[in-house]
Amino acid sequence: MVKHMVIIHPSAGNALTLRVSLERVPGMLGKLTSALGAAGALVDTIDIIENTGDVIVRQIQVETRGQAHGLQVVEAAKSLDGVELLSVSDRVFDRHRGGKIEITPKFPVLTRDDLSMAYTPGVGRVCTEIAEHPELVWDYTIKSNSVAVLTDGTAILGLGNLGPEAAMPVMEGKAMLFKQLANVDAYPVCVRTSGVEELVAVGKAIAPGFGGINLEDVAAPVCFEVERRLQEELDIPVFHDDQHGTAIVSLAALYGAAQVVGKRLEDLNVVFLGMGAAGVACIRLWQHAGVGSFIGVDRKGIVHVDRTDLNEQKRSIAENSNPQGRRGGLAEALVGADVFVGVSGPGLVKPEWVATMARDAIVFAMANPIPEIMPEEMPDNVAVVATGRSDYANQINNVLVFPGLFRGLLDSRARSVDMSMKVAAARAIADIVAQDGPSPDFIVPSIFDARVVPAVARAVQRAAADAGLGSPVAVKKTALIGSPARRT
Amino acid sequence: MVKHMVIIHPSAGNALTLRVSLERVPGMLGKLTSALGAAGALVDTIDIIENTGDVIVRQIQVETRGQAHGLQVVEAAKSLDGVELLSVSDRVFDRHRGGKIEITPKFPVLTRDDLSMAYTPGVGRVCTEIAEHPELVWDYTIKSNSVAVLTDGTAILGLGNLGPEAAMPVMEGKAMLFKQLANVDAYPVCVRTSGVEELVAVGKAIAPGFGGINLEDVAAPVCFEVERRLQEELDIPVFHDDQHGTAIVSLAALYGAAQVVGKRLEDLNVVFLGMGAAGVACIRLWQHAGVGSFIGVDRKGIVHVDRTDLNEQKRSIAENSNPQGRRGGLAEALVGADVFVGVSGPGLVKPEWVATMARDAIVFAMANPIPEIMPEEMPDNVAVVATGRSDYANQINNVLVFPGLFRGLLDSRARSVDMSMKVAAARAIADIVAQDGPSPDFIVPSIFDARVVPAVARAVQRAAADAGLGSPVAVKKTALIGSPARRT
Repeated sequence: MVKHMVIIHPSAGNALTLRVSLERVPGMLGKLTSALGAAGALVDTIDIIENTGDVIVRQIQVETRGQAHGLQVVEAAKSLDGVELLSVSDRVFDRHRGGKIEITPKFPVLTRDDLSMAYTPGVGRVCTEIAEHPELVWDYTIKSNSVAVLTDGTAILGLGNLGPEAAMPVMEGKAMLFKQLANVDAYPVCVRTSGVEELVAVGKAIAPGFGGINLEDVAAPVCFEVERRLQEELDIPVFHDDQHGTAIVSLAALYGAAQVVGKRLEDLNVVFLGMGAAGVACIRLWQHAGVGSFIGVDRKGIVHVDRTDLNEQKRSIAENSNPQGRRGGLAEALVGADVFVGVSGPGLVKPEWVATMARDAIVFAMANPIPEIMPEEMPDNVAVVATGRSDYANQINNVLVFPGLFRGLLDSRARSVDMSMKVAAARAIADIVAQDGPSPDFIVPSIFDARVVPAVARAVQRAAADAGLGSPVAVKKTALIGSPARRT
Repeated sequence: MVKHMVIIHPSAGNALTLRVSLERVPGMLGKLTSALGAAGALVDTIDIIENTGDVIVRQIQVETRGQAHGLQVVEAAKSLDGVELLSVSDRVFDRHRGGKIEITPKFPVLTRDDLSMAYTPGVGRVCTEIAEHPELVWDYTIKSNSVAVLTDGTAILGLGNLGPEAAMPVMEGKAMLFKQLANVDAYPVCVRTSGVEELVAVGKAIAPGFGGINLEDVAAPVCFEVERRLQEELDIPVFHDDQHGTAIVSLAALYGAAQVVGKRLEDLNVVFLGMGAAGVACIRLWQHAGVGSFIGVDRKGIVHVDRTDLNEQKRSIAENSNPQGRRGGLAEALVGADVFVGVSGPGLVKPEWVATMARDAIVFAMANPIPEIMPEEMPDNVAVVATGRSDYANQINNVLVFPGLFRGLLDSRARSVDMSMKVAAARAIADIVAQDGPSPDFIVPSIFDARVVPAVARAVQRAAADAGLGSPVAVKKTALIGSPARRT
């Protein structure tokens, strides 16, 4: 497919901190900020660090469009007479230095008595009780609130197979969001494994200490088999967020968008571009939720039953989609479609193709960080646009799902996660939008909307109970008799 | 071997909280506390919860000798006229409820800009940099301060193979101590594996996210092979605490005890009872440190070269010990010995055997929680006694070692841990005692002595540098140019 140019704006994800020494003459700051602006940077805060003698030392935060652009901006600042560049640091890298999470004791151990209760010898009695009554691991350890964020680093964001070390910053970021948004204790488990068997073996081995496993950034098709195997063999929920998180949050957005354009889900013809982990999971969940019909498109064109190059997942999609038997590429698929969903790569969709879609078309261009087509490029028949980006309306982001979903799973001690729980999570997100009234610029709530996590968690708990997948919570036991007070 | 009775005292590790309703008549409280005392309980705090009408509701903390004794104490309280027992809870279990550690973000993510720097899309640049410059994982992730506390739960404390779930309370307790004493972020990795190969595979797989591995409570002989293999195949230090932590802290105690009795290390004849992981590691480290001669004793008696039932470790010990070629059991081994070290089981040593040791004998009876012989039982020829217990002087506890040791290993980015670093750690602990002046009741510092961790960390760092085992710390890089400020 042919890529076309998309426009990228400066963003906080590409922010620099410049420390500059300016000659103390009127107009110097204006000269500098003008030069930065002319170089395409967005100037944020400007602080004075030192103001003595002949110079003023200032610290200036600027947003750039990326690494290469950042270098141009730095050059623009350096080239000015009367400006000395003292240092440049990258605000994003500063944030990640030393890592972003830590392990904190819930109470201090300050005396011998503390030690003998929290550690040896007292802890021995707790160990013995758990060995005799295995369900007590949920009561007397962190298991009941802990999630492993498990990855082999083979599909990090849209960046590909960068390995487990390079995956750490993403998994730590997820752990931050888990804790802050849903009080879930998530820990990054970034593993060096090769293929399905090894990753399954590690997942099974580490499971005793966790109440759930969030698989993350594992490449297709390994991710499908790993998730299936782990879920079959473990009694805690296993959830590949790149598949199902994306499927859930995009379904939530579809509920909102369909309401905006006044179309019913069962009447929608949907075209998916990208038949990787996310695309396949989206089609399956959306079908389960009652969406009308689908056409899947991959790198080689429309996925149909006559193709001989399909893997197991795509073959299953081919057999359950494309009712009109279309052939060709994305251009052919899009004609008359109500919804386009991109989970593919940057700039893969041409505006003129989108123009052939139905009136009041819905476009979810979710490739990250650069969408398949930018919102500015939409033809007039498009009524609702969403992307994965935070700098446009309608950000479709898994962050809306995973914290609340795992909160609900942990609180119901769910043994697995099924379709009904996923649809319930999507519905809960959509209901928040429905309460406020959806509009073309508001089909999903903000990830900072405090209603999201509790709503998703409650919906998942209810669905788990209905599906009989929540564990009957073990009768609380104490070592002796009576009922100990709960730690609060 | 024949066990004899040892005396156990009430302790905080076996504390109960009783809530009782007492008739409001003079003498009721005295009646209750007398009954508790008569039942052998130690009464701690007494609080009034409610004081209205005809009764006073009190909450009473008592220490007991253990689970069975706790039940007797409860019965003693219940049987009193005028006393109604409202509830009993176990203070130790209360402490462990819900687990003892949590994952905390180092800074909040409150805005879209925060999100775009800590998570997507900004995080993608950090991932890419790490993929291109792998050493940067030490700078921009938690690896540089993270330790995996890895166990298969096959030898939990002295309790045996209770499995990975039952190991969690111990590993969480360790994580608390790591953080509080040395600001190390340790995470429990309690795995369900079978044998050497599986545990090695998991250890290798999870290593990318950790700066060190603390093997814990893995049974012998699996622990030997797992540690050796992991250390060979990984570029981070791997340290089996049950072996080397015990070896280091007991060597530190030996330095102190030898000073008290005025004997030189090279003149000491030492008898070890218990040839498991700890015993073997102790003999090896003590030999390396220059201690005179050894006799090892296991369940079947003295370990000597003519025995045909020895595993690889014991054979090696047999070949490097017992210079007089003694035969027999512990009784025969102890005759004339300067030092006895027990890393075996409760009550295995008779006072009359100890009486045959040399004058100014040193006894380290480290079986936990019940020593091989209690301090009260020592014959007159014993000058210094130490145990693993917190309720006697001279507690020999690994907590003196592992926090500072890993602090030093992480700070020097050590690739492994060798004998010189272990001896340096023991020496650092002993130097603190030497500063204050050792005495029969003071051969090791308190684990709450704030000097211990920094001293051990510095000693390990220096030894790592001397041994060339510290990694040359990667040149600090930023994504662009200049030097970013360190997060503090």
